[in-house]
Amino acid sequence: MTQPLRIYLAGPEVFLPEAKEMGEKKKALCLKYGFMGKFPLDNELILDDKPHENGLKISRANEELIDGCQLVIANITPFRGPSADAGTIFEIGYACARGLPVFAYSNTKVLFTERTVSYFGLSRDPATGVIRDHHHMNVENFTMVENLMIDGGIEASKGKIFRINVPEDELYTNLKGFKACLNAAYKLFAKP
Amino acid sequence: MTQPLRIYLAGPEVFLPEAKEMGEKKKALCLKYGFMGKFPLDNELILDDKPHENGLKISRANEELIDGCQLVIANITPFRGPSADAGTIFEIGYACARGLPVFAYSNTKVLFTERTVSYFGLSRDPATGVIRDHHHMNVENFTMVENLMIDGGIEASKGKIFRINVPEDELYTNLKGFKACLNAAYKLFAKP
Repeated sequence: MTQPLRIYLAGPEVFLPEAKEMGEKKKALCLKYGFMGKFPLDNELILDDKPHENGLKISRANEELIDGCQLVIANITPFRGPSADAGTIFEIGYACARGLPVFAYSNTKVLFTERTVSYFGLSRDPATGVIRDHHHMNVENFTMVENLMIDGGIEASKGKIFRINVPEDELYTNLKGFKACLNAAYKLFAKP
Repeated sequence: MTQPLRIYLAGPEVFLPEAKEMGEKKKALCLKYGFMGKFPLDNELILDDKPHENGLKISRANEELIDGCQLVIANITPFRGPSADAGTIFEIGYACARGLPVFAYSNTKVLFTERTVSYFGLSRDPATGVIRDHHHMNVENFTMVENLMIDGGIEASKGKIFRINVPEDELYTNLKGFKACLNAAYKLFAKP
């Protein structure tokens, strides 16, 4: 009997008021595809009153959780700015280096450059075509969903990024993109 | 004759108008400590008029550059929001999974939670002590420099994070924190 493949469920859902419930929803969807989902809050850690030590424990436990998985599905919906959640980005890089396929979804179809331009009210220099931010730093323009290391890492991992538009009040809860990732992961691993 | 240890130089400097000059400055400082610095723009890539393909090429070349290094020094100064540059965060995760020690510096002493609170004008619930953002999502509070995956990953890698305050107009160019990283890296590798 073969063990189900384990998927690390990366994303900012851990910060939702109903984080655990969202984890359970995602894990139930994984099961429908024959996968076993692993959610960061599954770790049962003994935390005390030292916040820094607790943070280190959670980080270590999450890394170990990824190490025990065969793939990652990451929610890269923009979080507190034009980019995805910092912890999620770290985990994508970590998983790519570990050789795990990473599938990702973003709950907006707007690409990275356009998000950055609109978030900060920037404009393109009509003469050079270059976009600079308020620190005169160049805004990369590679028609990508995220910073090129993320799109490139995911592509090289044999994963894929899905973008969909969702209603504003479902930005961090809509699971249509997550299902698209599950479907693609299922196809990747079902290949003979 | 031993080869000098190679350091991947991660950070948002690649977006500076004078990016190449900054890379040369950092590489010169590495040499003073007997290290060889590798800057993303060192890659000599043949790019054409397909932005997406170009982005993938750069990503692949940067991953290979990290693979050829023995450690990483990352500039995690907040970039376009409370968190570090997305590409830099990916590279830290990637390097941690590859087992490379990662040293990092931030050109502000303000910690992650306080940066997030002040950037978005949030406040702590006086009854529960919990901080929520405008999407009601929890703001993590672990007295860390960044999201806990970054602080935790760096700590586990045997690296270290340095924080210093710099004048506003030197936010992305001041190299005092970079030198602190070099010094710490030197000590780590000089250990008998």
